[in-house]
Amino acid sequence: MEPIAFFGLGHMGGAMATRLVDAGHDVKVYNRTPDKARPLVEKGATHVDHPADAVTPGAILVTMVADDNAQQSLVSEEVLGRLGKGGLHLAMSTVSPAAATAAREQHARHDVEYLACPVFGRPDAAAAGKLWLALAGPDGAKSRVRPLLDVMGQGVFDFGGNPTSANVVKLAGNFLIVSAIEAMAEALSLCEKNEVDPAGMYELFSSTLFACSIYQNYGRAIVDQRFSPPGFALAMGSKDVRLVRDAARAAQVPMPLAGLLEDRFLRSLANGRADLDWTGIALDERESAGLGDA
Amino acid sequence: MEPIAFFGLGHMGGAMATRLVDAGHDVKVYNRTPDKARPLVEKGATHVDHPADAVTPGAILVTMVADDNAQQSLVSEEVLGRLGKGGLHLAMSTVSPAAATAAREQHARHDVEYLACPVFGRPDAAAAGKLWLALAGPDGAKSRVRPLLDVMGQGVFDFGGNPTSANVVKLAGNFLIVSAIEAMAEALSLCEKNEVDPAGMYELFSSTLFACSIYQNYGRAIVDQRFSPPGFALAMGSKDVRLVRDAARAAQVPMPLAGLLEDRFLRSLANGRADLDWTGIALDERESAGLGDA
Repeated sequence: MEPIAFFGLGHMGGAMATRLVDAGHDVKVYNRTPDKARPLVEKGATHVDHPADAVTPGAILVTMVADDNAQQSLVSEEVLGRLGKGGLHLAMSTVSPAAATAAREQHARHDVEYLACPVFGRPDAAAAGKLWLALAGPDGAKSRVRPLLDVMGQGVFDFGGNPTSANVVKLAGNFLIVSAIEAMAEALSLCEKNEVDPAGMYELFSSTLFACSIYQNYGRAIVDQRFSPPGFALAMGSKDVRLVRDAARAAQVPMPLAGLLEDRFLRSLANGRADLDWTGIALDERESAGLGDA
Repeated sequence: MEPIAFFGLGHMGGAMATRLVDAGHDVKVYNRTPDKARPLVEKGATHVDHPADAVTPGAILVTMVADDNAQQSLVSEEVLGRLGKGGLHLAMSTVSPAAATAAREQHARHDVEYLACPVFGRPDAAAAGKLWLALAGPDGAKSRVRPLLDVMGQGVFDFGGNPTSANVVKLAGNFLIVSAIEAMAEALSLCEKNEVDPAGMYELFSSTLFACSIYQNYGRAIVDQRFSPPGFALAMGSKDVRLVRDAARAAQVPMPLAGLLEDRFLRSLANGRADLDWTGIALDERESAGLGDA
């Protein structure tokens, strides 16, 4: 198994890197907050203090960081120069399509292949190797990372040769999720203000027409008004909605629902809810209907 | 088995009445367009030319009609007078909560019990007895109609003693459905304008996070741009969104997504799409993004 450099040990990245270490990979990790590397080091990973020190020339770099800026600053010219010819960057973060397009060009200048592989799933799915993966990039690189993907995910969907495509898919998917949260929040407020038991309504939709994980898990959280600890923080959801809006603007796609969601997230941030789970946007709907907090 | 009067033989009502006849019930049917009764009469139902003639005193009336007006005009004072004490009206149409509340009071004056039992499912589900049923009303009446519900549905969800509750649930459920259609339409346009295969995006979401019938069936229709024949006509969907808005207004529940959907349906109606399936609202999104018809 070839050596792996792994950048980003947040809730998601930490769980994903752990899967790779547990599968026997030789993993060198870097994280801005070194403390987060401790559990991995105990399992056999090596922690380095400087990103480039994690990289083996011609090997694989995996990144799972918060946003465009984090990816761009960590995957520096120095890192790409060291990765060099034969090197491969498996970029799993949710970044903008524009950042993916720029990264592909930058990587090509260093003869490093760039594969986009954003993930769907929460930290518990990452820990269980049950993520869903949207993959796009050069074919040879796809075969090369397949053993890693099999350890981290339960399924891979291939979106062709252009890495940017996978990032568009990730944004479109997160847009579907947050749209479902908004719809449930409004529907459940309508029920509650009409003295219809929201738990009964949840039982109906989540076991029939919408018997799927998004409605079951997020619907449960809204009914129970359980918004912390966050599986995915509202501030991160807000970032993703902004990325959707940016991508829609760039491609000239009117997305009125995305616009509505942007305002919903802004109101939620303005009212101090950045650290709640992103289902916490339901509180803004409740308040607007005079229902208030639980 | 007690005699049943059945009003309303559209795509849904016709299939539901057929289930009752096939199960051996003595069914007298009325429909404004008598032609639609022919297949039922061939199976043993009796067609009458005047609604009250379908009714056996003290027996059961089932209605599955288009809207508030149809229910109010068919279930007349004459019909209720004939149904009389011991009579039961199983109202399965999608009517407004306000109409349900008024009907309950009107029925009480005739000693007729009023049960609301709107349904979820399309005509093929109705034909297979696979509807999902939202039931609310008096307990004794619920036991009495149970044999009928078991023939028409695959599951019954009980929302208590107030019939209006079931109608609120039906509207909230249809709102969730049409919200999912809107979200998919926007997400798939975003993909298409970024040269990402919409069929690939559909494959991902409908087999993972959204592996449930609404996303699978309606998502497929949007990707294939197959909007006729309608399973549920866009004009009927527009009516339901209006009912959601009316109910939200009455209960003072701001529902921004419902407002957005109302405009989407109005634009679709204004552009001659009343007779398409309600997934046809996706065409308006496509046009707005410069994608045009297929």
